[in-house]
Amino acid sequence: MANASNNLKVKGNISDLIIHDVMIITMNSEYKVYVDGAVVIDKDRILAIGNTAEILDKYDAREIIDGSGKLIMPGLINTHTHVPMTIFRGYADDMPLHEWLYDYIFPVESEFVNAENVTLGTKLAMAEMLRSGTTTFNDMYYHIEDIATVVDQVGMRAVLSESVIDFPAPNSPTPEDGLKTAEQLIRKWGNHSRITISVSAHAPYSCSSELIQSAKALADKYQVPFNIHVAETRKEFEQTMKDFNLTPVGYLNQLGVLGPNVIAAHAVHITPEDIQILIQRSVSVAHNPECNMKLASGVAPIPELLKAGVKVGLGTDGVASNNDLDLFDEMNTAAILHKLNSKDPTVLDAQTVVEMATMGGARVLGMESEIGSLEAGKKADMILMDMMQPHAHPIYNIYSLLVYSMKGADVESVIIDGKFVMRDRKILNLDEKSLYSKIESVAVKIREKNNLLTLKKPLKD
Amino acid sequence: MANASNNLKVKGNISDLIIHDVMIITMNSEYKVYVDGAVVIDKDRILAIGNTAEILDKYDAREIIDGSGKLIMPGLINTHTHVPMTIFRGYADDMPLHEWLYDYIFPVESEFVNAENVTLGTKLAMAEMLRSGTTTFNDMYYHIEDIATVVDQVGMRAVLSESVIDFPAPNSPTPEDGLKTAEQLIRKWGNHSRITISVSAHAPYSCSSELIQSAKALADKYQVPFNIHVAETRKEFEQTMKDFNLTPVGYLNQLGVLGPNVIAAHAVHITPEDIQILIQRSVSVAHNPECNMKLASGVAPIPELLKAGVKVGLGTDGVASNNDLDLFDEMNTAAILHKLNSKDPTVLDAQTVVEMATMGGARVLGMESEIGSLEAGKKADMILMDMMQPHAHPIYNIYSLLVYSMKGADVESVIIDGKFVMRDRKILNLDEKSLYSKIESVAVKIREKNNLLTLKKPLKD
Repeated sequence: MANASNNLKVKGNISDLIIHDVMIITMNSEYKVYVDGAVVIDKDRILAIGNTAEILDKYDAREIIDGSGKLIMPGLINTHTHVPMTIFRGYADDMPLHEWLYDYIFPVESEFVNAENVTLGTKLAMAEMLRSGTTTFNDMYYHIEDIATVVDQVGMRAVLSESVIDFPAPNSPTPEDGLKTAEQLIRKWGNHSRITISVSAHAPYSCSSELIQSAKALADKYQVPFNIHVAETRKEFEQTMKDFNLTPVGYLNQLGVLGPNVIAAHAVHITPEDIQILIQRSVSVAHNPECNMKLASGVAPIPELLKAGVKVGLGTDGVASNNDLDLFDEMNTAAILHKLNSKDPTVLDAQTVVEMATMGGARVLGMESEIGSLEAGKKADMILMDMMQPHAHPIYNIYSLLVYSMKGADVESVIIDGKFVMRDRKILNLDEKSLYSKIESVAVKIREKNNLLTLKKPLKD
Repeated sequence: MANASNNLKVKGNISDLIIHDVMIITMNSEYKVYVDGAVVIDKDRILAIGNTAEILDKYDAREIIDGSGKLIMPGLINTHTHVPMTIFRGYADDMPLHEWLYDYIFPVESEFVNAENVTLGTKLAMAEMLRSGTTTFNDMYYHIEDIATVVDQVGMRAVLSESVIDFPAPNSPTPEDGLKTAEQLIRKWGNHSRITISVSAHAPYSCSSELIQSAKALADKYQVPFNIHVAETRKEFEQTMKDFNLTPVGYLNQLGVLGPNVIAAHAVHITPEDIQILIQRSVSVAHNPECNMKLASGVAPIPELLKAGVKVGLGTDGVASNNDLDLFDEMNTAAILHKLNSKDPTVLDAQTVVEMATMGGARVLGMESEIGSLEAGKKADMILMDMMQPHAHPIYNIYSLLVYSMKGADVESVIIDGKFVMRDRKILNLDEKSLYSKIESVAVKIREKNNLLTLKKPLKD
């Protein structure tokens, strides 16, 4: 119902939703910002965007919202995560990646990653992502049909890839089973408006060259993204140098698996020659600064990658190594980390970082014509931020404010595919409170198991 | 009024407040954590702390609160900031420290730092600090009586130092005026239960040796803390090496101004010999990791300082260079920055970082017998965190959860000196909403001025 107080002129069709008198960061190619803007949403798409006066003169809608005191920006895009791993949040910290992965994570994954826990962990992750402004995420894990079912119910947008690895995975006794599952699911979910199913290979150090090639061939067959962890640690770099006399990127290039649908997670230990390979093959990079810092893996050369023209998006990685899914935190960390690392406080300015978390992420996923910016015709994926917070004032440069001062917790509402998924801090399709006790019950079991593992360490690197 | 449903046995005196059935992180010398704890507050102090059953058996109170779903921990201590600078949040970013300071900050300070704007900026800072869990802060700035007046009204605990520098400061035509003001205020506010007035010298590069010595002598005369920025940038290090053939720390040592009441902010560019000087002189260090990263100043050798036994606290620095006052962010950044910098993911584990932000800060301020941990007899300065958040689950290691996952925005209530200062996210003695438009009006004027400055750059380094 149109708000009578607004004197609207109804012209032809009535759209679904107008939000007006709101600051809008579009992230379009001109970085247009509306100080007093309005956006019109119809079905799943943005019908129009402009100044409030113009929009209210031309459009009417079934619901009209006064956005005073709020800011609208594109929903954030998390280009690398493993959402069911929320059940392992904080379970093993303050240790190196290989010890963490082989002594702590792989053993509990084999025991606790089942359909029920994947569903629980995904719900928890979904709540956390929505509450901190993420609308789209790119996941690599197991049991992805269970993940997809939750994503479908809750209303997020996601690329979900079945991950293959050289030892028995939680739902695949062999990697071949994993590939078979992936193919079935790609076909089954092929027409979903918000969910893309794809395939991943875990990493050069945990997958045979044949497995990486088979997984990539499957991704190519269905033209879906292909994820792989690449050059995350110095150890991995040294391993491929020793085994093949090639860097991890050089090794993958030699395998013939690099291409425009490849998303290389991390890319920390890469050489200038590797950057040339990435740009030649149009490979994307998912940058996870907090995880790389916490595991002491190193710093990905993001300013150099951006300068070379490589597509770069931001990611959180899984919460077992971050330990959260908050891309506002990640934006802040990315901005200040690369200043420190380059000894140059002018690199990765705030606008560049917001770009990485929005349009950059969309390009990484090959979805830049649909999401990542607020423009007429694109999908209506956006977040409303509450600016009535002390750290949101004063406003000099809005990108600085978003990156250096504002928080995930300032996200008040989330619209995905034209629908409110969170409204006034309430997630509409998820019962969060009942979730917490269920999650804690799983944690009790993992904690008991963990004590055993700590003593016995059954799997060694 | 006691809650009748609790079957309390009234034994002697009735205290002011009991919070029960709550998880309590004490940060006492044994790092005691109560999973089902209770705390008794009477007047400004903690009367008792223990398990809920024991406490409810022994104590009664005028107000009894069920803390289920919450966590209580000591209020965080910000050991280095400049609170009125909130009016400059985001005004000049993505540039080096000296350009930022001399071309942007000093010019607007001389124009806009007056009693009215200091009061406004301090109120905004206070709102932000309380909302992110800070109960005590250590400030160095000008117009400190105006700061003190706001701190007194709002109810926070603070050390406020009048800062002297070798050119006209906002409220002191000469540094001697600044010292005179500091001495008057130290005497006037000497008996305040929450406010300590002290004195600071800006930095070795901006104060003459005589001025540093006079300021330090004044601090010693009244036995109050003495703040000074030390070895923040490589440029400063090179300057004292060139001028005196001494490091900044070595130079201050030669001036005879280092001692147990000295708080060295930053201490980024220090040598192993400097660390020996700091430990010999019992000097404290205020560590500001986000500011040091954002300005590309470098990384303070915190693991080495802690190993040597130097007192280290966490700080945010002013919001003009951070750009927020959130110590939860700062804890997370400190923990992951030093892992990266040391190439060792085991350094600065989560418990060590929480210690820095609580007891560490108390030691830096010489207040460790009064604040920093929750123990019977100490001041009742504590924060209540809302654990009914997706990122607060599951709970394996509570320190990991606090440092790597939880946020300033999870702080629900704040008690300082035994009184609620923020309750259920409402700050009791501050009208926040009316503040924002006043702050934006100041920003409009600064923005106009800034355009002129950007063109003319009247002050050069």
